[in-house]
Amino acid sequence: MTEKKIPYKIYLEESEMPRTWYNVRADMPIKPAPLLNPGTGKPMTAEELGGVFCDELVKQELDDTTREIPIPQEIQDFYKMYRPSPLVRAYCLEEKLQTPAKIYYKFEGNNTSGSHKLNSAIAQAYYAKEQGLTSLTTETGAGQWGTALAMACGFFGLDLHVFMVKCSAQQKPYRKAVMETYNARVTESPSAETAVGRAILAKDPDNTGSLGTAISEAVEEATSTEGCRYALGSVLNQVLLHQSIIGLETKTALEKIGVEPDILIGCAGGGSNLGGLIAPFMGDRLAGKRAPYFIAVEPASCPTLTRGTFAYDFCDVGKVTPLAKMYTLGSGFIPSPNHAGGLRYHGMSPVLSQLYHDGLIDEARAVEQTRVFEAATLFARVEGTLPAPESAHAIRVAMDEALKCKETGEEKVIVFGLTGTGYFDMAAYSAFRNGTMVDYIPTDEDLAVGFANIPHLEGIQ
Amino acid sequence: MTEKKIPYKIYLEESEMPRTWYNVRADMPIKPAPLLNPGTGKPMTAEELGGVFCDELVKQELDDTTREIPIPQEIQDFYKMYRPSPLVRAYCLEEKLQTPAKIYYKFEGNNTSGSHKLNSAIAQAYYAKEQGLTSLTTETGAGQWGTALAMACGFFGLDLHVFMVKCSAQQKPYRKAVMETYNARVTESPSAETAVGRAILAKDPDNTGSLGTAISEAVEEATSTEGCRYALGSVLNQVLLHQSIIGLETKTALEKIGVEPDILIGCAGGGSNLGGLIAPFMGDRLAGKRAPYFIAVEPASCPTLTRGTFAYDFCDVGKVTPLAKMYTLGSGFIPSPNHAGGLRYHGMSPVLSQLYHDGLIDEARAVEQTRVFEAATLFARVEGTLPAPESAHAIRVAMDEALKCKETGEEKVIVFGLTGTGYFDMAAYSAFRNGTMVDYIPTDEDLAVGFANIPHLEGIQ
Repeated sequence: MTEKKIPYKIYLEESEMPRTWYNVRADMPIKPAPLLNPGTGKPMTAEELGGVFCDELVKQELDDTTREIPIPQEIQDFYKMYRPSPLVRAYCLEEKLQTPAKIYYKFEGNNTSGSHKLNSAIAQAYYAKEQGLTSLTTETGAGQWGTALAMACGFFGLDLHVFMVKCSAQQKPYRKAVMETYNARVTESPSAETAVGRAILAKDPDNTGSLGTAISEAVEEATSTEGCRYALGSVLNQVLLHQSIIGLETKTALEKIGVEPDILIGCAGGGSNLGGLIAPFMGDRLAGKRAPYFIAVEPASCPTLTRGTFAYDFCDVGKVTPLAKMYTLGSGFIPSPNHAGGLRYHGMSPVLSQLYHDGLIDEARAVEQTRVFEAATLFARVEGTLPAPESAHAIRVAMDEALKCKETGEEKVIVFGLTGTGYFDMAAYSAFRNGTMVDYIPTDEDLAVGFANIPHLEGIQ
Repeated sequence: MTEKKIPYKIYLEESEMPRTWYNVRADMPIKPAPLLNPGTGKPMTAEELGGVFCDELVKQELDDTTREIPIPQEIQDFYKMYRPSPLVRAYCLEEKLQTPAKIYYKFEGNNTSGSHKLNSAIAQAYYAKEQGLTSLTTETGAGQWGTALAMACGFFGLDLHVFMVKCSAQQKPYRKAVMETYNARVTESPSAETAVGRAILAKDPDNTGSLGTAISEAVEEATSTEGCRYALGSVLNQVLLHQSIIGLETKTALEKIGVEPDILIGCAGGGSNLGGLIAPFMGDRLAGKRAPYFIAVEPASCPTLTRGTFAYDFCDVGKVTPLAKMYTLGSGFIPSPNHAGGLRYHGMSPVLSQLYHDGLIDEARAVEQTRVFEAATLFARVEGTLPAPESAHAIRVAMDEALKCKETGEEKVIVFGLTGTGYFDMAAYSAFRNGTMVDYIPTDEDLAVGFANIPHLEGIQ
């Protein structure tokens, strides 16, 4: 390798860091549909939502007109401990693939939670503290969100109770220990601590849990506990708002080096990373400016965008949450436990769902996990960083696109979100290495079971 | 918190990164004593060392006159994937401690190996590849060095066989999985694969291993295998040379913000981090310029500098290595398995030993592990990053010094090395949290057993 003009890592100065989040809803031609009260079928009011989320977050959740929302100074200061995150030029990956494509990734894993989740966790904890609340509840799957919220609550001195999807907790005992080090209490879900959990266990004592179930438990506890609210790490409008910092930094960094992306790729589970990464670039498209080709990548085992339906559905298994209009596999859909690493959610952010439905996200692509781990292992060896399985979905598609460029000779600029690190996913890496990892693709019959569970709302869908 | 003048993180530009390593031996008034052949009692020749290490590294090992040694372009390029590492201003820790001290740390944990070890690993793998070798062997304790060398060998396509201290391997199964993902073969030591290992197991089948034993096994295999050499992650002169990049970057970053350190603190096991961090600042002292007060921190359970003796000793348990003049507890010394997290080595880098013996390192301090984990947990909560137990030794002393400043009102500038992250040390964090962690301090009788094992060399010591 010889000296390169563009550095391997592009960092912003502290003074170049965003001071406002970008609210893409303000620019959307068709706004995401409002959350509905499942009892009345009417849009959730701020008062109703205020029982679940703290007040400022309710405001952000409902605000689809304010384009820029200031980041409070305390949150900006916390961001400075682990941000700006680097935009990395993947010179070594390009060389390995022998591609003329220029590959960049925005790396969000350089913090102890190991992912971008901290961007929203610290905001949610801050607003809870400002409101004088004393505790939060949440759910976690792979553990990144739970760890992030534990860090945020530990920082602001709030109590936190995490309901962790049972099969993930058992695959990753050390994730629990990390959260506890930050002073969180961690309970495996389904648990006997909530009515929802007890009902599920009574029917099926061996239930290995799902994000949807853990959400039900966390919401139940938050709404029945004094001074407590619920926090969610994805799907919600407020979360995508906070995560817009990923895209804002990425855009500023690319502008600094004078590079315009042709393809922008993010993995999508509930949508927090993808929504944050693409937000300001989508803003360009909505303003009629040049924008990259947007690709959402999801696991073939949980194909929400590629095989789901766009409908109002519950966000959880226990059906205690409001209804959201989104791409969904049905709240009863639980991906095979063989599926490793996140992106297991049955639904998708209403913002992203609407954008995809309206053709503003260009493509959704489902990938099988052995191909994902093949990409992850190669990436680790040539770029150094061991990626989270979730992030590796984006790596897989970035590599596929770069290999297409190799065939066509196109020098496309490919940018993807590397959301986190896979240090707690070694059981899955070992399974891949040992050849015991299997791909799971639900049949149409499997999906039909989930779809049957979606409520049919008179006059609405 | 209000806007601060000095940013939270100081990054160098790529163009400011060091292009040469600094060889502190060139400036030492009394050079570290040469390695001796245990058979002849004579200094090891380049030819003798060439059976163990690759040629260029032998040259670096023996060179105590060249002040600056160029970093090959390939290594500079690899460094750019994860360096420069940030120098972080610990604003949140200062606020938590309510200290007038200004605290900075150089954070080396932002790479998949989780520590500074990669700085030397990539150099050692590069020179091996350049010489046309096909494989390396090494040992690892906590696993950071093994992971780093696995990454480096994976990058350059060399085979690697890691002998991992058995009790560490069993405490940290996922460390092994990470190394395997980078294509290394990992064997628990003592093993039946070497004569040294078999002899130890014959005497004591339940032996839980030590770095010293693992070194013996790795050296035996390297010297008896075609195209293979041995790599060591600490102690050696060559390793301290490569690690000087830590101190060089730290010095440049401090100069950029116009700050002069009063106290410089590093944890010390074999000495790689401390030696690298202090090197250029020590160069200032040796040139008669202003320099900080140097503190080496070690575990009370393995008190090499504070309670060891300065003598020629073997670097390994099996006594297959050359003799090094160093502070040592005797090659037979094995710290209690209760001791968590690295810094378990019986000896200390000859460079640092000489500097300490000559009063050029101002102080060595031994700390107990519960106090170390108390500091680690506090640091994690206020600064975000979950530190490696090794690094937390330095945090403990930095906090102690900052608390002294609180009493005296002095605004000292305290800089310490945060060598890595503790994601694979959660069992120890849990033990601390559950109150089951115990402190172990060897008695004088315990130490006497190790000392009795140190060779008495006629006419030398």
